[in-house]
Amino acid sequence: MEKWLGSLKTKNPQEGFELAITLAQKGVQYTQPSEKIRKKLRPKYSTNAKSLIAASQVIAINFQTVAAANNYWKKT
Amino acid sequence: MEKWLGSLKTKNPQEGFELAITLAQKGVQYTQPSEKIRKKLRPKYSTNAKSLIAASQVIAINFQTVAAANNYWKKT
Amino acid sequence: MEKWLGSLKTKNPQEGFELAITLAQKGVQYTQPSEKIRKKLRPKYSTNAKSLIAASQVIAINFQTVAAANNYWKKT
Amino acid sequence: MEKWLGSLKTKNPQEGFELAITLAQKGVQYTQPSEKIRKKLRPKYSTNAKSLIAASQVIAINFQTVAAANNYWKKT
Amino acid sequence: MEKWLGSLKTKNPQEGFELAITLAQKGVQYTQPSEKIRKKLRPKYSTNAKSLIAASQVIAINFQTVAAANNYWKKT
Amino acid sequence: MEKWLGSLKTKNPQEGFELAITLAQKGVQYTQPSEKIRKKLRPKYSTNAKSLIAASQVIAINFQTVAAANNYWKKT
Repeated sequence: MEKWLGSLKTKNPQEGFELAITLAQKGVQYTQPSEKIRKKLRPKYSTNAKSLIAASQVIAINFQTVAAANNYWKKT
Repeated sequence: MEKWLGSLKTKNPQEGFELAITLAQKGVQYTQPSEKIRKKLRPKYSTNAKSLIAASQVIAINFQTVAAANNYWKKT
Repeated sequence: MEKWLGSLKTKNPQEGFELAITLAQKGVQYTQPSEKIRKKLRPKYSTNAKSLIAASQVIAINFQTVAAANNYWKKT
Repeated sequence: MEKWLGSLKTKNPQEGFELAITLAQKGVQYTQPSEKIRKKLRPKYSTNAKSLIAASQVIAINFQTVAAANNYWKKT
Repeated sequence: MEKWLGSLKTKNPQEGFELAITLAQKGVQYTQPSEKIRKKLRPKYSTNAKSLIAASQVIAINFQTVAAANNYWKKT
Repeated sequence: MEKWLGSLKTKNPQEGFELAITLAQKGVQYTQPSEKIRKKLRPKYSTNAKSLIAASQVIAINFQTVAAANNYWKKT
């Protein structure tokens, strides 16, 4: 796969949260590389509450990693 | 998306817990940006015990991050 | 919501575990504020093994946070 | 509830793992206090692979807490 | 139960991963002590993708613990 | 099993993420050693949104471990 993740460092928490979303999506993409299939699945899971909560959970786990990597964006 | 997360710092644990709830909700919103669709799903998952427990779990994971970012609100 | 969480500090591990239970319940309450609806759901999930295990998992995650906040109640 | 958790300290990793099991069980007991109901559920979930894996997961999460509390039983 | 866990220390990451598998299995064994029943469940869950992913998740959680206990096998 | 995991150290975050994927896959392989059976399951779970999200979650958990092992690839 081409380069997509250069660093876990972000300027602020919100960009960190958005990086966590990217990580969650990449976990799916590596498992299902076909964009066509992923696009077909989208209307279903994005209108299913349980899937949305599950997606939010994967984001939360990745956000823990990104936040730790940024020392929680604490001003030093 | 507009700016919604400036800092992980909160004044006290309860505000930290409420920030964790916001993070859990944002994970859903980024995955399903349509407010209309999210509102339609709400009556279903909010009256389903398994979904409520799953939502509480995502909040718990985000609360770990927020609590660590605030050094657990320990008085120093 | 009124004040319900003043501190993550507890006198001992058991009170910490009980605070973790409160946090798990609060995650549900914020998501479903109606006490009436929550009470209606209770007989179902509390007699369902999978839901009980899921509830125990949310408690376990919150207990990690509370235990860390108390430095694992280590005597110093 | 009577006193059941005095300390997270254990003599060795195996006792720590067994404490993690106790914590997982207590999470269930606080949610469903009736021993009668819990016993009725046991034959079902204990012969269901998904439930057994879910139970093992709650134990694993609690074991993280107990292991950290014991500094991983490292000899100092 | 007889002694099965003497230490969380392993010689290298791979042995650590294999210890994580043992921990995941032990979580199941403590919950369902009958080897006969566990063997009967095996053909089903080991050919079910969702169960295999769930098993891999429990291993991943235990591997976090084992890796931390070994300071990630960093050369000092 | 032959040697497959020599170190948790990677050159950069992306390789770390890819190692996390390997760990997630190995968790499945140890549980179901038959490559033939695993290949048969692939078309199903890789076109199922819930399974893909679950797989991404296992990757996220393993990525936490790999990231910590690499001190989040911080430049020192």
